[in-house]
Amino acid sequence: MNGAQTLLQTLVNCDVDVCFTNPGTSEMHFVAALDQQDGMRAVLGLFEGVVTGAADGYARMAGKPACTLLHLGPGLANGLANLHNARRANSPIVNVVGEHATYHRSLDAPLTSDIEGFAAPVSGWVHVSESATSLAADGAAAVHAAMQGPGQIATLILPADTAWNDAEAPATALPAPALNPVPAERIEAIAAVLKSGEPCVFLCNGLGTSAAGLDLLGSIATHCKADLLGDTFIGRVERGAGRVDLPRLPYFAEQAEETLQPYQHIILVDTKAPVSFFAYPGKASELTPAHATAHQLSAAGDATLTALEQLAEAVGAGSVAPPRAGLKQPDLPTGALNPEAIAQAVAALMPENAIVVNEAATGGFALPGFTANAPAHSWLDLTGGAIGMGLPAATGAAVACPDRKVLGMQADGSGMYTVQALWTQARENLDVTTVIFSNRKYAILQVEFMRVGAVNPGRKAMDMMELNRPDLDWVAMAQGMGVDAARATTAEEFSTALAAALANPGPNLIEAVL
Amino acid sequence: MNGAQTLLQTLVNCDVDVCFTNPGTSEMHFVAALDQQDGMRAVLGLFEGVVTGAADGYARMAGKPACTLLHLGPGLANGLANLHNARRANSPIVNVVGEHATYHRSLDAPLTSDIEGFAAPVSGWVHVSESATSLAADGAAAVHAAMQGPGQIATLILPADTAWNDAEAPATALPAPALNPVPAERIEAIAAVLKSGEPCVFLCNGLGTSAAGLDLLGSIATHCKADLLGDTFIGRVERGAGRVDLPRLPYFAEQAEETLQPYQHIILVDTKAPVSFFAYPGKASELTPAHATAHQLSAAGDATLTALEQLAEAVGAGSVAPPRAGLKQPDLPTGALNPEAIAQAVAALMPENAIVVNEAATGGFALPGFTANAPAHSWLDLTGGAIGMGLPAATGAAVACPDRKVLGMQADGSGMYTVQALWTQARENLDVTTVIFSNRKYAILQVEFMRVGAVNPGRKAMDMMELNRPDLDWVAMAQGMGVDAARATTAEEFSTALAAALANPGPNLIEAVL
Repeated sequence: MNGAQTLLQTLVNCDVDVCFTNPGTSEMHFVAALDQQDGMRAVLGLFEGVVTGAADGYARMAGKPACTLLHLGPGLANGLANLHNARRANSPIVNVVGEHATYHRSLDAPLTSDIEGFAAPVSGWVHVSESATSLAADGAAAVHAAMQGPGQIATLILPADTAWNDAEAPATALPAPALNPVPAERIEAIAAVLKSGEPCVFLCNGLGTSAAGLDLLGSIATHCKADLLGDTFIGRVERGAGRVDLPRLPYFAEQAEETLQPYQHIILVDTKAPVSFFAYPGKASELTPAHATAHQLSAAGDATLTALEQLAEAVGAGSVAPPRAGLKQPDLPTGALNPEAIAQAVAALMPENAIVVNEAATGGFALPGFTANAPAHSWLDLTGGAIGMGLPAATGAAVACPDRKVLGMQADGSGMYTVQALWTQARENLDVTTVIFSNRKYAILQVEFMRVGAVNPGRKAMDMMELNRPDLDWVAMAQGMGVDAARATTAEEFSTALAAALANPGPNLIEAVL
Repeated sequence: MNGAQTLLQTLVNCDVDVCFTNPGTSEMHFVAALDQQDGMRAVLGLFEGVVTGAADGYARMAGKPACTLLHLGPGLANGLANLHNARRANSPIVNVVGEHATYHRSLDAPLTSDIEGFAAPVSGWVHVSESATSLAADGAAAVHAAMQGPGQIATLILPADTAWNDAEAPATALPAPALNPVPAERIEAIAAVLKSGEPCVFLCNGLGTSAAGLDLLGSIATHCKADLLGDTFIGRVERGAGRVDLPRLPYFAEQAEETLQPYQHIILVDTKAPVSFFAYPGKASELTPAHATAHQLSAAGDATLTALEQLAEAVGAGSVAPPRAGLKQPDLPTGALNPEAIAQAVAALMPENAIVVNEAATGGFALPGFTANAPAHSWLDLTGGAIGMGLPAATGAAVACPDRKVLGMQADGSGMYTVQALWTQARENLDVTTVIFSNRKYAILQVEFMRVGAVNPGRKAMDMMELNRPDLDWVAMAQGMGVDAARATTAEEFSTALAAALANPGPNLIEAVL
């Protein structure tokens, strides 16, 4: 076996069985090894932002890493923005990044670059393989690193000769890393806070937003008359009928401040103390009110579910029924097509057990409210603010969960970043319905332009925030990549198109013209 | 004036008058300042790879930097691959990268990342502005840094409060950096080599491939019976009728070795000793033959033209006429559409003074030969191997040279990387004709797969190297972004479409189905 073959068998031994790829010459031995390895599915993306975003969506739904196959420094660089998002979602990913042969690197051939330098800002673990014989162990270490804590990005750099030289044997999986136990004193202290009668809110993310976590939080909050809030952006939250609803901390800092104002205690569940997404002149960046105290129940990597069970016992909420949402779907909307009508139609038509990938930005404001009583679904947010996550993450989620319908709620500006993902959806015949919120602008920027204190945008400034002149034709672009598509300009047209799309397995897209 | 206003006025003072942008919230004050600054043109790209690739193409044609406006670490990250190419082309670029306000960075908000870490591998100069009052001087320093040597990438990181706080005054331009003189002894030594009668070849890039450089090289080579070769990939070379033709060092290492085999002396003109693009098992990486000696006449940043003038005098070639190519255009091709037919039609129809942006990869092999006697044109290659440079660089070249027709020779796989550039061509009504070599595969990988010693690709390996299932429809994608497009499947159809496209100012695209 050569190095690439041992690495690939090792990855399969470690339960990594999907590889999102965009290879080049230096990865050809890995591709050849893929060809001979039945245990690994290979999914091509036509741009690396698709590859890494798909790995993020996959990890969030599969709860384990996929690997990526990326071509040298520039291939990794193209995938960095979605790796940034994955890092913020604590998604486990194993990047396999090709590199020039060990003896070739010092020659500074055109594709030579500082791959470790590119990798470091997004990776919890970076390693350059030194030889074909060390590659198998490096692969096992990479998977182990990816599963550390809540999950992180492990980047294994693979000089071409370590792939093609003779190696020994594949490695076996290392023991799965354990979550950090939460100290009993911490749980007792927070139980005391909850029993004090002072206004408390839980701010939740990570394991706290799983169905089990929300049940526990719902019981505790009901019993202690505390409130629940989710972070503004969450890697994955379980929602809809049968789940405990989780309102969110608003995006805009002044609204977030107002939301947190009533509380004396903010209990942090698998998250950090709240800060504003951006800074604004004369506005606070830290959102914990001056009169309030933040209490860290658990952080990312902690055994949050066990801690919540213990907290429920400590406050006497162990047998309290969680306040689960009932099923209630609205009628189909009529009239003008606007964000509310889209949200209403989605809530009316969403099938059981869907996966919603939310990169709808401003256009999506009505979605959470309308879908709170829709059939149970998983919901994935843009966690790191690097737009272009939606179409790729939907792609990866569909690979992870072939029996579930994926609904991509997609802003047009963000969608253009990684529009190539549509082709992968077509090639793999993934069951993804994408709704493009086609408002033909970076609407958030028009809001933010005012909010940062800049005023009266002129033609040149507006040109930087509008996607018109010319209008994008999403139907044409989607069809050009092999995805069925339709355009809707009224609520009725949208409902009809969405019903058809959901009834039709495989990828399709609706351009909702707003 | 606030910091952003002084920075922008400073950039204009330094003769930087085009800004390729994709801004976000943290850049809104810069956008507001753009709005008020008539001296700076702002060109929006719908993905940052478009922005940085356009800045590269612009710099190669304008001979001076554009600035980019990028949104935090992920915005920069999306532009890194084309900055890698720009670095390899020695293109001057000033990146303005927004960052969280100075006091906000330590809070680790979702978009926080190590921007300096992302920037370092591609930048010759990186600086984080510390205050609004230092921003103007930082801007002048950035332009100065970008113009150092042959040109490099200068990255100025702009915390949002340095943009919005009050500043003092704009700065003026720093003195232009000078090229390094080539020592007289070096010229004399190379003159002696040329006079020795031993077989010599010039290997050229940079200033050596300008019209003036090629004239000087042509005179010297004619007089000394030496040969001329260009690097495999060149940032910009002047070609066609009236210019000295520059054959190229072949891409594949064994062909390059064979090409260099006859020579005892390789004289390096604004380039480095030749190395193979990739390493291959059992093949040499360094291409200078064992029996030959490489002599460095000049390196990037040296005063190559002066050195060539001195060398011409030293060998007595000062008055020798350079062997300039004559004008000779072929007839239009007929029959099957293949790479030769495309090249023949391009050579037959290319207008005077065109700019050819070449990212045609394997499909473009016939282009140099067919166009050697076409009307004079500038020719820009993919210099760093990071595919996705072509459509953006054509965009930037057209912004730099509004009176010249830009011809984008574009492989389909590479074109998909930054396909969003078509929209910018439409918005700015740029005079770009793009020819997509639609072979529906990463053809180079199918060659390389064999060459690295991997054999007999199976279905899974082939899937990683083919762009079919489904076929991309470039006409639909281009029209979806507002660019006129046509499909050609025969040589006659292609010639007709190309003639129509060239006669029609503004952007258009031809999908040449191979």
